[in-house]
Amino acid sequence: METLGGPFFSVAGAGESHGPAVTTIVFGCPPGIYIRRSDIQSLLDRRRPGGNKHGTPRNEKDKVVFLSGLFQQDSQKLLAGNQISVQVDGAEYSTEGYDEGFSTGEPIAAMVLSTSKKSGDYTQLIGDQGEVRPGHTDLVKFHQSKGFVDVRGGGRSSYRSTISDVIGGGVARAMLFDKFGTVFLSSIYQVGPLKAGKSLAAEVGTGNVSADAIAKWQASLSENEIATLDAKFANEAAELIKETRKRGDSIGAAVEVVAVNVPALAGDPLYQSLKVRLMGSLGGLNAVQSCEVGSGTDVIERTGSQNNDPIRSDGYQGNTHGGMIGGITTGTPIVMRVGFKPTSTINLPQKSVRKNLEEIDFELEKGRHDPCVGVRAGVTLESRMAIELANAVLSHQARCIDVDSHKLW
Amino acid sequence: METLGGPFFSVAGAGESHGPAVTTIVFGCPPGIYIRRSDIQSLLDRRRPGGNKHGTPRNEKDKVVFLSGLFQQDSQKLLAGNQISVQVDGAEYSTEGYDEGFSTGEPIAAMVLSTSKKSGDYTQLIGDQGEVRPGHTDLVKFHQSKGFVDVRGGGRSSYRSTISDVIGGGVARAMLFDKFGTVFLSSIYQVGPLKAGKSLAAEVGTGNVSADAIAKWQASLSENEIATLDAKFANEAAELIKETRKRGDSIGAAVEVVAVNVPALAGDPLYQSLKVRLMGSLGGLNAVQSCEVGSGTDVIERTGSQNNDPIRSDGYQGNTHGGMIGGITTGTPIVMRVGFKPTSTINLPQKSVRKNLEEIDFELEKGRHDPCVGVRAGVTLESRMAIELANAVLSHQARCIDVDSHKLW
Amino acid sequence: METLGGPFFSVAGAGESHGPAVTTIVFGCPPGIYIRRSDIQSLLDRRRPGGNKHGTPRNEKDKVVFLSGLFQQDSQKLLAGNQISVQVDGAEYSTEGYDEGFSTGEPIAAMVLSTSKKSGDYTQLIGDQGEVRPGHTDLVKFHQSKGFVDVRGGGRSSYRSTISDVIGGGVARAMLFDKFGTVFLSSIYQVGPLKAGKSLAAEVGTGNVSADAIAKWQASLSENEIATLDAKFANEAAELIKETRKRGDSIGAAVEVVAVNVPALAGDPLYQSLKVRLMGSLGGLNAVQSCEVGSGTDVIERTGSQNNDPIRSDGYQGNTHGGMIGGITTGTPIVMRVGFKPTSTINLPQKSVRKNLEEIDFELEKGRHDPCVGVRAGVTLESRMAIELANAVLSHQARCIDVDSHKLW
Amino acid sequence: METLGGPFFSVAGAGESHGPAVTTIVFGCPPGIYIRRSDIQSLLDRRRPGGNKHGTPRNEKDKVVFLSGLFQQDSQKLLAGNQISVQVDGAEYSTEGYDEGFSTGEPIAAMVLSTSKKSGDYTQLIGDQGEVRPGHTDLVKFHQSKGFVDVRGGGRSSYRSTISDVIGGGVARAMLFDKFGTVFLSSIYQVGPLKAGKSLAAEVGTGNVSADAIAKWQASLSENEIATLDAKFANEAAELIKETRKRGDSIGAAVEVVAVNVPALAGDPLYQSLKVRLMGSLGGLNAVQSCEVGSGTDVIERTGSQNNDPIRSDGYQGNTHGGMIGGITTGTPIVMRVGFKPTSTINLPQKSVRKNLEEIDFELEKGRHDPCVGVRAGVTLESRMAIELANAVLSHQARCIDVDSHKLW
Repeated sequence: METLGGPFFSVAGAGESHGPAVTTIVFGCPPGIYIRRSDIQSLLDRRRPGGNKHGTPRNEKDKVVFLSGLFQQDSQKLLAGNQISVQVDGAEYSTEGYDEGFSTGEPIAAMVLSTSKKSGDYTQLIGDQGEVRPGHTDLVKFHQSKGFVDVRGGGRSSYRSTISDVIGGGVARAMLFDKFGTVFLSSIYQVGPLKAGKSLAAEVGTGNVSADAIAKWQASLSENEIATLDAKFANEAAELIKETRKRGDSIGAAVEVVAVNVPALAGDPLYQSLKVRLMGSLGGLNAVQSCEVGSGTDVIERTGSQNNDPIRSDGYQGNTHGGMIGGITTGTPIVMRVGFKPTSTINLPQKSVRKNLEEIDFELEKGRHDPCVGVRAGVTLESRMAIELANAVLSHQARCIDVDSHKLW
Repeated sequence: METLGGPFFSVAGAGESHGPAVTTIVFGCPPGIYIRRSDIQSLLDRRRPGGNKHGTPRNEKDKVVFLSGLFQQDSQKLLAGNQISVQVDGAEYSTEGYDEGFSTGEPIAAMVLSTSKKSGDYTQLIGDQGEVRPGHTDLVKFHQSKGFVDVRGGGRSSYRSTISDVIGGGVARAMLFDKFGTVFLSSIYQVGPLKAGKSLAAEVGTGNVSADAIAKWQASLSENEIATLDAKFANEAAELIKETRKRGDSIGAAVEVVAVNVPALAGDPLYQSLKVRLMGSLGGLNAVQSCEVGSGTDVIERTGSQNNDPIRSDGYQGNTHGGMIGGITTGTPIVMRVGFKPTSTINLPQKSVRKNLEEIDFELEKGRHDPCVGVRAGVTLESRMAIELANAVLSHQARCIDVDSHKLW
Repeated sequence: METLGGPFFSVAGAGESHGPAVTTIVFGCPPGIYIRRSDIQSLLDRRRPGGNKHGTPRNEKDKVVFLSGLFQQDSQKLLAGNQISVQVDGAEYSTEGYDEGFSTGEPIAAMVLSTSKKSGDYTQLIGDQGEVRPGHTDLVKFHQSKGFVDVRGGGRSSYRSTISDVIGGGVARAMLFDKFGTVFLSSIYQVGPLKAGKSLAAEVGTGNVSADAIAKWQASLSENEIATLDAKFANEAAELIKETRKRGDSIGAAVEVVAVNVPALAGDPLYQSLKVRLMGSLGGLNAVQSCEVGSGTDVIERTGSQNNDPIRSDGYQGNTHGGMIGGITTGTPIVMRVGFKPTSTINLPQKSVRKNLEEIDFELEKGRHDPCVGVRAGVTLESRMAIELANAVLSHQARCIDVDSHKLW
Repeated sequence: METLGGPFFSVAGAGESHGPAVTTIVFGCPPGIYIRRSDIQSLLDRRRPGGNKHGTPRNEKDKVVFLSGLFQQDSQKLLAGNQISVQVDGAEYSTEGYDEGFSTGEPIAAMVLSTSKKSGDYTQLIGDQGEVRPGHTDLVKFHQSKGFVDVRGGGRSSYRSTISDVIGGGVARAMLFDKFGTVFLSSIYQVGPLKAGKSLAAEVGTGNVSADAIAKWQASLSENEIATLDAKFANEAAELIKETRKRGDSIGAAVEVVAVNVPALAGDPLYQSLKVRLMGSLGGLNAVQSCEVGSGTDVIERTGSQNNDPIRSDGYQGNTHGGMIGGITTGTPIVMRVGFKPTSTINLPQKSVRKNLEEIDFELEKGRHDPCVGVRAGVTLESRMAIELANAVLSHQARCIDVDSHKLW
């Protein structure tokens, strides 16, 4: 079953890259969290390929509408949002979607139509004679499904699927911010060989952070040419991406992801620990090939006396551990780093095969081209972190039986 | 997480009774099953309250559109169906839904808009002073969610939620019919004190059944006044329901549910056996208070020598076991019986409380009234049986490693 | 995965009927519940075939030892219980099991050795020529596993597997009694055609019950010839069972299962509702063919005005609903009824086949014989009810975020 | 629920570090796989702290006995292994464990007694005044469980829990080797600042490998001072570990993990992809802070034209992708790299707190000390990889419906 998070807070997604829509159902949001369509839309706008000038030129728009799970008695505010219509069997049916309201504890469904796809671009890839794009899932998915595959794109393996991550993450963020003031941030720290001079992990430190500090970081991240704290690096990296695109090539990148004002004591030990879940969820994202927590690969070279974070009565005095010990949150910011491969799609000749394994010299005929997928991945990584943290919080609550919460009479 | 079936074949649902839409995601349909919107729509038409003259007068229409998971290269046929539009943030976005195609193995999402709801009917129920309808979930859901509840109806506890069951069941039925010729049928066998003279379980016998026989049963079931094999009983029961409605009251009913041409050897033993799953899924449906398999409560009075079904080389010679032994299918028809309470909503005075537990004499001010919920439950019960059987078949396949299915080169 | 309950409170089991041991792991018990080996042992003693004179004569003893998940600083009390030894690779290793202690929130493992099995009894059933016992899983399990089946008994399909149910249920009962005073009871209400004159459901009424009342019911249940409230019926039923055994035959039975002092507001609506879970768990137990909640099949004949339970400020005034509305607990006792088929194993000639489907006249050569499986099923049914209720309680807690429970510094 | 893998092939574990035993249940092994106790014991011997001279001096022995799930008709061979006894309530009960046999498809349970623990070592850590070891879970687990914690060690957070990983992995390995010839290997490639000159990933190349090649690698890995292919590095690293231990300090390390002769087409796309699962399972292991697949962090600096692996008719010509594309196996070896922090336990003074947050200068009074946890982690990492791959294989099979596998008559 295609779900992120769970079993408490979880997100189910559906919708291949060139299908009618991406559908999302968010399960397990506790009742009473105020959810705004506009907040989730802002997160989706960050994810969108056309959302920055270094992504693919396809402008997907990606407008979300909410179909269930919210309520407030002021039906003007609840429904002020949007209209949904279907024409089917010769008649038209119409209703209003939700704009904002309190979660009821029931599943929250959302739909994002796919309106800018151009299926004609993919004729090169169709059928047994279809060509295999190196680095793509074309070959394995064709054979795994015995040919019953949607050839118009990567199906669910497309980055378009992460719309569900962002919507589910948006609900998780609303809940965690409302209850704990938790905020999720990400900053690109490497593009190809270029490295940022500023680290988000270093900036956020070990304790709780103020709304002002968060606003300042968010401002830099959105103002710079790419979403990083270091303006100089942002300009150089943007230039490198532009040149790479011109050459028909692509380039790797790496991103820091951070949660601040984190509730302590969330997460189970061992097999379903928050560390297991985050390493899987962030490290398993499309195109990711490395995932680190806290000081990451740096700890390999250290001794224990260098690496153990000292503890004082107000908290941990360092964050080599990255916000979790034994997979349980310590209240210190959660800090992770994720490395992305260069986008597989390039406009240069490559050695490949047809789906029937006949060898070919491959060159992509058409198709959009996003030269540095890492550049717009931040919001997805933040979303996945939020989903898993939300689930870990609910998991901790399940252990805490409060007899009064079961009194009715 | 709100799912039916699983972990292999499963159905996730969202959408409260008076929300914008019911959203469904079907997971785990193997690639290569041909799915038609029109087939699923026919099943939904059977579920619809206005689908027969003895349900609630509300005509919901309930048109399904498919948003993902299907494909065929003939895009005319794939997309010939329907148009989906959203108006949001001042612009309109439009795309075509799927009409028919092969499953790709990726999740199949579907949406049914809710267009005939009248939220004004529910002012009697709002807030801490809101009145509690006896037999309904009003009280427990209000307190469980600390008041953040959708008061316009029963939320997910409404029968409207079973739209997802029927859509998911429709996909499961397509798969099981395509591979095994399996067909699901149901027949009302009791309405209040009136009992049918014909049993579907008796008709289907113990072996495989022909397409002709199935067509004949389906014809009687759809032609009679209510969905039962016995025309005389159908007329009397319909009359009883009509009278009961006039009195403002409601009445119980019971339904036989049968699967014929069942694949043998499906199902796990013990804790996740098909029997556990079917008893839970059918017996746990809203308003159900009893669930039986095979000869059901009749076996209590029997001896083993009367009850054990004799076995010959062509199969079991009786079906007291109801198609499963040890929770594993024997190939004999699966036979179950389900008893429904009279609908809780009635138009007669009752003792009740407000949500704050203040005592009141309750009388429903407005609201639609479906006097015999069992009458239209058949398609939902068949759907749940199909979903669990589909999952059990996939579960059996997971045990059968075929090295060739892992060869690529 | 073979688990009962879950995802919060769940029980994993392993161990075929004639294997070395039945192993149980209980997940999700919150920290701080005091667990005593002797309490769980008492429950197992009720389950044991030799535990009453009407079960199979095999005296299994079934002593439980605890291997993990408990702690207290007084290591005398923690470890005063028992010694576990293994001899392997020419050496002996020994350690002490846990006797009693507080749950730590980590998994609680337990082992019950199988020491009285006689594998020689089963030669009649071995291999492709092995004979199939009607009503047993022999045939389907042989073919499902392509012959790699343990022929010495029913494997996991044996009633012996329910040892895990009882151990897991014992932990759930300890938790629910500690927090809410919840107690689980069961009473046989039918054996073949004989019916009890007293109903446990009627006795417990609709409100909370006192410790004295519970003790009185428990006393009758354990003193009577079989576990029922009605002494006269107990004697007659015991006689009927004895006669049935003499004839080499078996007989069906039915059991009421009740939880009193139930925490309200537990359970999710719809697909994973407590009603779905209980109908599946109790109704799916080996040999069960019917399962009812509240007034069960009686409600089919009723009208809504007869059937809706009136509500007053101190609770529901009737219990036709059986303790759950919309699958959520109301605080009223949970009431269920379960019907068992006559035991499949009989000592009379029957029509059957070999595993290769060759037809035979079957007569069991050897093997123990438990003429009325329903007679000792009560403790298993109570256990399954406790496991699902425990899980539903934790599920409700997961929805209730208490910010303080996440403070560390 | 504490499980690895799943929902098809999964491993449940129980048993805190100083409890009576570690209990393991392996679910989902298909019927017909021959399992030998001696093979699993050999894997456990590799995991054992005393298994090499650079681990902790505690000699745990860790003998496994099998309690369920195996069968063969030769009961001599099935049971030739070992004896299990319990003394409880004044009597002794004894039975034989399984030595070797075919899996039956039912759960395989195993027990490893903990016989060498010394609980007296941990008095420094008890209660509200107990001291917190920096880098350990002492603080978060104490507060998460409101003090009901086993203070004798790390509970389930201890490395001892990985016994279940190795047993479950052993069953998965037997299945994958039997069906596909798949073998799992690991090699230490870094200890502190020292790096190996030989890479296992480079050695195994991109195609299938011969039994001879595997045997040669296994020989070097077991002969060298530490489990690495490079003998010179092994000697230097062993020396560094020895010196580090003398200083009372610890040191980080990194390990390559590889699967060869991998079945293609295993794994689901997206949220439950094999990449998600492996990154989580390996990257989430205790003490791990980085996890990479294929070329890992190296890809960040590359362009797409450098990084995309060329495809020819006999397979991928490079393995920057690490054996999975879109989370689905390509048949190329699965290659991962995992970085471990230096062991938290050191014998040097550190800043810490008591559990009540009172600040202290911490120095460990007693307790064993394993200066480089990475050195014996290889077999656990291999095991986790095997469990997830086994699950992915079964998941692929579930999609492939073979009508014949459902024929019984």
